[in-house]
Amino acid sequence: MRQGGSQPEVAVPGSLSSVEAYQAVIASAITPLVPVSLELAAAEGCVLAEDVTAAVALPSFDNSSMDGYAVRAADVAGAARESPAALRVSGEIAAGDTGTYRLEPGTAIRIMTGARLPAGADAVVPVEWTDGGTVQVAIHRAAPEGNAIRSVGGDAAAGETLLTAGTRLRPMQIAAAASAGRGTVSVYPRPRVVVLSTGDELTEPGTPLVPGQIWDSNSYMIAAAAREAGAVVHRRSVVRDDPAGVLPALRERLAGADLLVTTGGVSMGGEHDVVKAALRELGTVTFWKVAMQPGMPQGFGVIGADGKGGESGGDKTPILTLPGNPVSAYVSFQIFARPALAALQGADDLNLPATAATLTGPVRSPSGRRSYLRGVLNGTEVTPLSGQQSHQIASLGRANALIVVPEPETQLPAGARVEVLVLP
Amino acid sequence: MRQGGSQPEVAVPGSLSSVEAYQAVIASAITPLVPVSLELAAAEGCVLAEDVTAAVALPSFDNSSMDGYAVRAADVAGAARESPAALRVSGEIAAGDTGTYRLEPGTAIRIMTGARLPAGADAVVPVEWTDGGTVQVAIHRAAPEGNAIRSVGGDAAAGETLLTAGTRLRPMQIAAAASAGRGTVSVYPRPRVVVLSTGDELTEPGTPLVPGQIWDSNSYMIAAAAREAGAVVHRRSVVRDDPAGVLPALRERLAGADLLVTTGGVSMGGEHDVVKAALRELGTVTFWKVAMQPGMPQGFGVIGADGKGGESGGDKTPILTLPGNPVSAYVSFQIFARPALAALQGADDLNLPATAATLTGPVRSPSGRRSYLRGVLNGTEVTPLSGQQSHQIASLGRANALIVVPEPETQLPAGARVEVLVLP
Repeated sequence: MRQGGSQPEVAVPGSLSSVEAYQAVIASAITPLVPVSLELAAAEGCVLAEDVTAAVALPSFDNSSMDGYAVRAADVAGAARESPAALRVSGEIAAGDTGTYRLEPGTAIRIMTGARLPAGADAVVPVEWTDGGTVQVAIHRAAPEGNAIRSVGGDAAAGETLLTAGTRLRPMQIAAAASAGRGTVSVYPRPRVVVLSTGDELTEPGTPLVPGQIWDSNSYMIAAAAREAGAVVHRRSVVRDDPAGVLPALRERLAGADLLVTTGGVSMGGEHDVVKAALRELGTVTFWKVAMQPGMPQGFGVIGADGKGGESGGDKTPILTLPGNPVSAYVSFQIFARPALAALQGADDLNLPATAATLTGPVRSPSGRRSYLRGVLNGTEVTPLSGQQSHQIASLGRANALIVVPEPETQLPAGARVEVLVLP
Repeated sequence: MRQGGSQPEVAVPGSLSSVEAYQAVIASAITPLVPVSLELAAAEGCVLAEDVTAAVALPSFDNSSMDGYAVRAADVAGAARESPAALRVSGEIAAGDTGTYRLEPGTAIRIMTGARLPAGADAVVPVEWTDGGTVQVAIHRAAPEGNAIRSVGGDAAAGETLLTAGTRLRPMQIAAAASAGRGTVSVYPRPRVVVLSTGDELTEPGTPLVPGQIWDSNSYMIAAAAREAGAVVHRRSVVRDDPAGVLPALRERLAGADLLVTTGGVSMGGEHDVVKAALRELGTVTFWKVAMQPGMPQGFGVIGADGKGGESGGDKTPILTLPGNPVSAYVSFQIFARPALAALQGADDLNLPATAATLTGPVRSPSGRRSYLRGVLNGTEVTPLSGQQSHQIASLGRANALIVVPEPETQLPAGARVEVLVLP
């Protein structure tokens, strides 16, 4: 317990900002990371920084889509069950056979799925339409020209764009890049994020709790959320409320980071809001009051610019200061940090998916602020959870959605249609 | 090109199976992995094998939800702007202060958000209701008993279950576990998956293509899909179509795997379907024809059982043999391997999310088989892509959904409502 105190701070940069206005502030200041060339498996989940085109026509050669016999359609034109066409089988081509073969008129070549069509053949007769012969084959059904043949270029022409820059490489896109022959791709790297919880009250989960302390959940939660949003968590740690020590602690952890995310130390209080005080002194971070609940106090800027704050005086590193209550930190991360991570990755696909649902119970919201209330979405209904205060984390563990209550509303009854954000 | 051939195989175990019947075959044979205790950060994305309860009441002590002054409500009962209550400020308690304090009647103690309430106080007056004084404070609004106080146990009672076994540890659940003091949790480990593409025609992306060959995309795609479904890909490689070599190659790669997934070598053909031939000889893998398109030929069983197939003769390892066409392999993975990975993880949350949408164009489907057609889902409409053959991977790269056409339907017009599976 310390004696004395300080003056209350004046909120800057002024009045309440809307969620969208603050998102725009962040978006305007963040540019994508410099692309890197990665081996395909290492690029999983990353965003393409280039178009991927087919190096060659796909398929690159005519091939069979079935196990059967390569023939000339004319040689089996009259084939029927009562009057099968009998052809000598002159050989067999397996998938992967890189030899060059020619079909002589009046003969058949056994051919496997994916095997290259011999020159002179213009149809494949599936084995099911034959007696399966290996020396001579009886074919009891005519095959039209082109039957069971995958033509060169039938999937994509040489040079055709298969994937465009900005596409995230999910499993299907990985397959398309591999099938186009790409061993490496140019992608935006995964952002390296440093996650810092601040506060003297924090102690590590798994250690004993002294009255007055709480277990740190924010750094674990934000690290997990950052990884879920495609980032690599470069470092996760707790910083103490030491006014002289905060900036050095941030500096020390800055090296190599693409984004710093802190929680705590940014509310309206005095000398205990050490993160806010230290960063304000730096002059490159601005603090905002955003018209939302939870999550009103927010801060965004850069650190390390012009030698300020950074070790090497080199790059500017963006920093987001989130409020310290766990639910406030979580909601703020999803609404502000997730799009910022998308921007670093050259993507715009990280907004939470939104849907509409019907409330099963009433909700309340402060006037003039957009509420994000924890809920359980089940089909087209959403149930608000009890325990909506921003320190109540038990209900966060049960939620799968955030119920959005628009700024003008102060209450909504059961049965109201609401926008719902689906949580990752 | 080889001369001669073999007898066509007879399909076993008999007639066409439904998708659900084959899923049930797999589900009945897979049991969850043995749980492990992991540090919280390492357990991200894993499924809990235990309930997580609050080690202590949460919060574990009465604390302030705002920056302000701890008071006795009785001492500020008459406070108003015209007649403020004046109280001596006897000190200050910051968050994290582990001292024990007592509020004397007629005094106030400055208190910060999250700080422990001093004994004798029964309300917190927000700083906004005061003149912010540090020696003496003028309070211009009465605070009812309990104001701005987070009571011990207000989030969860000691021993209360916060997360139940079977819950996947997403960021919010990580936060709940951390806030409950858990440094480690018992979870089902990530399944270790070995992914094998088979086929003489396969060559590595990034290397030159000889006519007759194609670039291997399956192993990259299945590895990415397995990782997306929570697995660790233990090994990814290509196995040649060598009848004598397949089983040794599988054996060699078996060690440490929780699931083997192969692609290729399982169609109805003869000696070229070396995977099927080798595994059938083993006697512990069954091959099925599933009433779907793409993906009809499927195989499932165990390898390594009773010394068969395995190096050490120890554990039985489940094996799924998927068809070789890339789109068939992809769809088969999502419909069969994904739920199998969920079962290994003690979860049931890995079925693809389903929604309903309206077709923007007509689709076709073979009678008696359920089609999974690639489409682009946009809101409530889904557009079938052109290029639906199972080797056509270009359209797979553009798809974000699979359109489900039920078994009896052979065509559906534009405007029809269909079930759509949203792709990860």
